[in-house]
Amino acid sequence: MQVEQVKNVTKQQDLQLSNRARLLVKCPDKPGIVSVLSTFLYKHNANIIESSQYSSDPENGKFFIRIEYHCEHLQDKAQEMEKEFEQIARDYEMTYNFYYRNQRQRTAIYVSKELHCLLELLWEWQNGDLDTDIAVIISNHEEARSIAESYGIPFHYLPANKDIRKEVEAQQIQLMKEYKVDLLILARYMQILTPDFVNHFENRIINIHHSFLPAFIGANPYDRAHKRGVKLIGATSHYVTNDLDEGPIIEQDVERVDHRDDVPTLKKIGRQIERRVLTKAVKWHLENRIIVEGNKTIIFH
Amino acid sequence: MQVEQVKNVTKQQDLQLSNRARLLVKCPDKPGIVSVLSTFLYKHNANIIESSQYSSDPENGKFFIRIEYHCEHLQDKAQEMEKEFEQIARDYEMTYNFYYRNQRQRTAIYVSKELHCLLELLWEWQNGDLDTDIAVIISNHEEARSIAESYGIPFHYLPANKDIRKEVEAQQIQLMKEYKVDLLILARYMQILTPDFVNHFENRIINIHHSFLPAFIGANPYDRAHKRGVKLIGATSHYVTNDLDEGPIIEQDVERVDHRDDVPTLKKIGRQIERRVLTKAVKWHLENRIIVEGNKTIIFH
Amino acid sequence: MQVEQVKNVTKQQDLQLSNRARLLVKCPDKPGIVSVLSTFLYKHNANIIESSQYSSDPENGKFFIRIEYHCEHLQDKAQEMEKEFEQIARDYEMTYNFYYRNQRQRTAIYVSKELHCLLELLWEWQNGDLDTDIAVIISNHEEARSIAESYGIPFHYLPANKDIRKEVEAQQIQLMKEYKVDLLILARYMQILTPDFVNHFENRIINIHHSFLPAFIGANPYDRAHKRGVKLIGATSHYVTNDLDEGPIIEQDVERVDHRDDVPTLKKIGRQIERRVLTKAVKWHLENRIIVEGNKTIIFH
Amino acid sequence: MQVEQVKNVTKQQDLQLSNRARLLVKCPDKPGIVSVLSTFLYKHNANIIESSQYSSDPENGKFFIRIEYHCEHLQDKAQEMEKEFEQIARDYEMTYNFYYRNQRQRTAIYVSKELHCLLELLWEWQNGDLDTDIAVIISNHEEARSIAESYGIPFHYLPANKDIRKEVEAQQIQLMKEYKVDLLILARYMQILTPDFVNHFENRIINIHHSFLPAFIGANPYDRAHKRGVKLIGATSHYVTNDLDEGPIIEQDVERVDHRDDVPTLKKIGRQIERRVLTKAVKWHLENRIIVEGNKTIIFH
Repeated sequence: MQVEQVKNVTKQQDLQLSNRARLLVKCPDKPGIVSVLSTFLYKHNANIIESSQYSSDPENGKFFIRIEYHCEHLQDKAQEMEKEFEQIARDYEMTYNFYYRNQRQRTAIYVSKELHCLLELLWEWQNGDLDTDIAVIISNHEEARSIAESYGIPFHYLPANKDIRKEVEAQQIQLMKEYKVDLLILARYMQILTPDFVNHFENRIINIHHSFLPAFIGANPYDRAHKRGVKLIGATSHYVTNDLDEGPIIEQDVERVDHRDDVPTLKKIGRQIERRVLTKAVKWHLENRIIVEGNKTIIFH
Repeated sequence: MQVEQVKNVTKQQDLQLSNRARLLVKCPDKPGIVSVLSTFLYKHNANIIESSQYSSDPENGKFFIRIEYHCEHLQDKAQEMEKEFEQIARDYEMTYNFYYRNQRQRTAIYVSKELHCLLELLWEWQNGDLDTDIAVIISNHEEARSIAESYGIPFHYLPANKDIRKEVEAQQIQLMKEYKVDLLILARYMQILTPDFVNHFENRIINIHHSFLPAFIGANPYDRAHKRGVKLIGATSHYVTNDLDEGPIIEQDVERVDHRDDVPTLKKIGRQIERRVLTKAVKWHLENRIIVEGNKTIIFH
Repeated sequence: MQVEQVKNVTKQQDLQLSNRARLLVKCPDKPGIVSVLSTFLYKHNANIIESSQYSSDPENGKFFIRIEYHCEHLQDKAQEMEKEFEQIARDYEMTYNFYYRNQRQRTAIYVSKELHCLLELLWEWQNGDLDTDIAVIISNHEEARSIAESYGIPFHYLPANKDIRKEVEAQQIQLMKEYKVDLLILARYMQILTPDFVNHFENRIINIHHSFLPAFIGANPYDRAHKRGVKLIGATSHYVTNDLDEGPIIEQDVERVDHRDDVPTLKKIGRQIERRVLTKAVKWHLENRIIVEGNKTIIFH
Repeated sequence: MQVEQVKNVTKQQDLQLSNRARLLVKCPDKPGIVSVLSTFLYKHNANIIESSQYSSDPENGKFFIRIEYHCEHLQDKAQEMEKEFEQIARDYEMTYNFYYRNQRQRTAIYVSKELHCLLELLWEWQNGDLDTDIAVIISNHEEARSIAESYGIPFHYLPANKDIRKEVEAQQIQLMKEYKVDLLILARYMQILTPDFVNHFENRIINIHHSFLPAFIGANPYDRAHKRGVKLIGATSHYVTNDLDEGPIIEQDVERVDHRDDVPTLKKIGRQIERRVLTKAVKWHLENRIIVEGNKTIIFH
């Protein structure tokens, strides 16, 4: 099965997208920020399409905003706008980023033997619902090779274990460079990453943990959930940091279980949760809806 | 049991609230609206605390925004600000409203024999979670009298049926005037209202319908749900219009049921859904989070 | 991509399955039924593994039971047991069926252009979670051909429209015979079936309707849901009868939506609901968990 | 407000209830158990109304069953039936209990300052949905006194802290005896119980913990949930054992939260979960639907 991504985007839509951008800003809260940002955009004939904001605390807090805007001839004007924005950013001590819709993020999917999360991501991507180029699939097993090849996505088999971790990670970092990868998705990739690797991709690695964190941190969460007799099981997608399963949580969900469900059944139910929880996180990241603040996420739905 | 509403608001908080307001605006979408609104507020030293917006369609659509702001000495400045705003509103063809936090909305609760929705509203109100003055409770039965009196809320028993509808509604309209009621809540009030009455209180009557609309419009929805063998039952809160159960939907929710659940059990389960779905709608209305547009609601969470 | 179904069943497990069966019984409720059934099984050295029952009404109602049992050398004894059971069935006016685990049901999947439900079924089947032989895939479009072929499942393209309905259905009935199909799954098959066709397969056609029935019966439910401004959208799996979308409901589920979700977004969200709601219904049917009673289903989870 | 429990039970229904009982059995799994139990009941003209069973493992496991039955003149026959059952129990090594519907369990509710769980229990009880006599309300604060008195339920104020724990618990044990209490409900009772007290009431103390256990065991779960940035918060009802928050879980549920929800908001949302999760657990206990097995619960819905 040779599968092509759906080409449901007409030329006109392409043009529209090429005139769209997102601006994300984080700064100390004070009066006038919305005014200065919206006036800046207005002056450049940019029309705000969507805007969401959050103040951590009206007094003395931080201010966060995500603005999606449309602007004719954006590609010609972007550089000048960004240049002009620098002064505003200085005045308000802003951390910020411009994201242009026509510059698709590039993704690498890491997977081990269980393919359900990978399949869900490919499915959404094929439907045109994941706005990314899937540049490469990396695995420490061969299970995903045929599916990767059927989609025409480069597949790299890199065996991994704790003895060769450093060497393997060096190869992986090299591959991420070659494939110009922006985002790493651990789609049930069952290997621990070293701090060095993680630091390389700060807030750019999304993992799916197969429990409702912070319950059942670490290995074998379904076995432990079964032993504890919980009545709901869950999954958690989060950015990877150097504290195991302690990174900023992006999304969580649960399903009801009962005393009749043995561990294999919990795993089956869990797979359904995992695939939707990971996919949502990836989608929000690609849509620039997530701001990481400390160990938490602000998500603009 | 004489119950007083919790006084969990200190003087300082009172002062803060008296400096808070919300501005809701609806207008044709065009560039610069956010800029003009935020600049207007900034000029008056008003700080935006929360802002949510929605464009029905980037081209040729409508624009909706809800801004909550804080402004020192707001009460002294409000009149002048509103005056100045008139020109902006004209320029942009805005429909708009200023709501001041220190001007609490006044509520009337209409109820028949079943008290669960009334009790839930009183509970939330008593906890300080419904920002309203409950001015009066109206019923066509006596069941709610003792609970109303225990809360010190005026209770009016007005028998109602189709033969005396006009006269009763005249009395009710009179009472609404006397008690200066802003919002009417039909908390399982089992009487049909005439178009005349409904027109009197456009988008100011909230009803709870005991089904997942548009399924089971009209009478006895639980019996019909049972007969149809549905696997979920629901409830819907909506503004009342002159089309039975066809008004703008505010909130809906469902619960799972199965073949073992007979009609009385469906009703019990349904009561849990009804009380939370009605309470949410009332809360959002009181927080000015709802804009009615045609037969639909825009809700800024 | 040539995909094989996972062979996760060892010989020993095969043997165990070949000694397993399910007995489903429906009869007038009266004392002693459980006693006579359990004693019958015990006498034949059959061990009850799972048993669920339901009385529609303690007095004058109907009694329903599903028993899963294990019995050494079941294949040698089944015929004799069934013969002996006839007398019990007569005494208690039972309608009943024995289902043997080693006699897998055969399935036909009908699909049009949208493949998400088909893909979900294939996925579950490939994981060993749908206990069926997928005998054939039928479509009035070519979209599903390559995926069918990649799984090695026969694919038949049968164009369909109201002018040629009779002829096409005759062909389909013929195909169902050839492929010895027990269950027909309409996985977003967008054609109306004639009463004649439906009668051919009573309680053996499962459809997925893309709304929360009985809301939005008929065509374009997502458009109508959008127009009505509902806050939850749903999907319903049901047996097909000759009343459009009125057959016995098997499973329903919903997801939350809001004013920002346009029709294409509702469809995307809806697809997630549809695929899980259809798959659950099919799974329960294959596990003989469903008894149809009038226009309702009794489901033994 | 003097509230009486709804008398929605007619004489005839009373008679029916007095002829109803439940039999719960736990024993090693082996063939013939259902046969021997159902035949025993049939011989005594008892009609099985509801029956649920569970085998922990078809081979070498344990068998659990809950049977609700109706039997004319049950009160005259109960003693003889129980006597005769002793032999069956010995033969099959059964642990068992007969529960008679006309012997209502007696309940004590323990509460501190927060009354929402207490109010929910009283509400359900008043509607006739909690099949118990609420014998007494115990508190280490005075907040619940007026509500208790309005329902005509004895209220005991027993101040508690770690220095006087032993003495207070002695008083409490004495009160439980005087009021003949079967079940203790900790409805947000914020005191630690000693092992001695807990042992006194094995599997007869139900607690509500304000987190999704095993996440956030111990104090201040909402603060910790906020700090961790979880996207769902939950509550857990469980039997109390001597390991803090480690007892057999009865029910759990969650609600979605986001970055805007501060700790007081989490608490408000949490209260809604707590009251329904505790009430379900109490209801199931009173309906004898729960069997504790090791550190887990088997719940027959």
